[in-house]
Amino acid sequence: MYTLYSMHRGGNSYKARLALAMLDIPYHLVNIDILRGESRTPTFLALNPSGQVPLLEVGPQHYIAESNAILWFLADGGPLVPTDPVSRAQTLQWMFFEQHSLEPNIGSAYFWMVLVKGGRELHAYSLEDWTEKGYRALQVMDNHLKHHAYFGIDCFNIADIALYATAHLAGECEFDLSPFTNVRAWLKRVERQPGFVTVDWRPEQPVPQHDATVRA
Amino acid sequence: MYTLYSMHRGGNSYKARLALAMLDIPYHLVNIDILRGESRTPTFLALNPSGQVPLLEVGPQHYIAESNAILWFLADGGPLVPTDPVSRAQTLQWMFFEQHSLEPNIGSAYFWMVLVKGGRELHAYSLEDWTEKGYRALQVMDNHLKHHAYFGIDCFNIADIALYATAHLAGECEFDLSPFTNVRAWLKRVERQPGFVTVDWRPEQPVPQHDATVRA
Repeated sequence: MYTLYSMHRGGNSYKARLALAMLDIPYHLVNIDILRGESRTPTFLALNPSGQVPLLEVGPQHYIAESNAILWFLADGGPLVPTDPVSRAQTLQWMFFEQHSLEPNIGSAYFWMVLVKGGRELHAYSLEDWTEKGYRALQVMDNHLKHHAYFGIDCFNIADIALYATAHLAGECEFDLSPFTNVRAWLKRVERQPGFVTVDWRPEQPVPQHDATVRA
Repeated sequence: MYTLYSMHRGGNSYKARLALAMLDIPYHLVNIDILRGESRTPTFLALNPSGQVPLLEVGPQHYIAESNAILWFLADGGPLVPTDPVSRAQTLQWMFFEQHSLEPNIGSAYFWMVLVKGGRELHAYSLEDWTEKGYRALQVMDNHLKHHAYFGIDCFNIADIALYATAHLAGECEFDLSPFTNVRAWLKRVERQPGFVTVDWRPEQPVPQHDATVRA
């Protein structure tokens, strides 16, 4: 059984848990609280020298880091990754877009505005930048969704899981999603997919412990 | 034959050209000068709504954006992408790291400090942040290279192409690479790979036109 090292209220970690749930893969969960430095202990750094979660242990001494690499590993060969080379590359295209243009802005805004006390004041200048770039990325997504139901072009796939895990956090950190009609409709479509799980994103809620696939 | 839309002195575009050269794939090159707004024209936005280069045309009306998705498309099935699932995911892991932790810092620093006149003053605050995070990413790379010759773990693969295209720019925009002994040795090893091509990164140099694989 895989072991997932995960931050309960981290968008990238949630992404891995969402994929595991949608693919109905049981796993052992280890909660890591990065706010308490648990991803920077010598023990954790020996597993992942970059000190980041999520981290998937796939065998003795074999680890995969980076949420979207974990998604690809879990889903390739199944229905959530296409088989023809162009569609596979376009799926990766949206996953790289998510990590380059969406997550560094919306994920950072959520982290510093919601999770870290005093983070809003500490990063006031960056917040302006994250907001501007976050809206730009949401607009690119909204434009795509004018003509397509999903980012797997016309069917739901792991690119949707990657983008959903970050994009839906925009609503948790003061982005105004009302102009992004297509994004809002797509978020709802993703939430109706089989196996969908969610998280109570409010920081004061207790962190559940799981040792298997978790259902919403 | 593929058509590559490329910014001559952009790290991400160079990455695609480097992969095409190393894989010995001929291509038609269209130079796009993003500093002159050529990636924001209605014609270009019709091809890639996110307005970014590189962009690879792989067939009539079929395009792949995001440099690392282009690399995967070009190289998968060949010697520069491994075949076993864990190694494939670890290759993607380093490619996501490149787009998330290295390129937004070193790529941005090069773009605004070297290519854009007045960019250094305009982004003085961000430069501090990019510098700090860029050094952190270089340290993660240097730590990996203490125990491995390449990011394809023990052989050169497309993760090395992705990381090289960005990391070597650090030297063009005032990062001090002298403490990163392992990174410096690895840069030289990459430069000795068959098919390696380089770019004259100084902004005042003319932009060459090519319609085929380019050799250094």
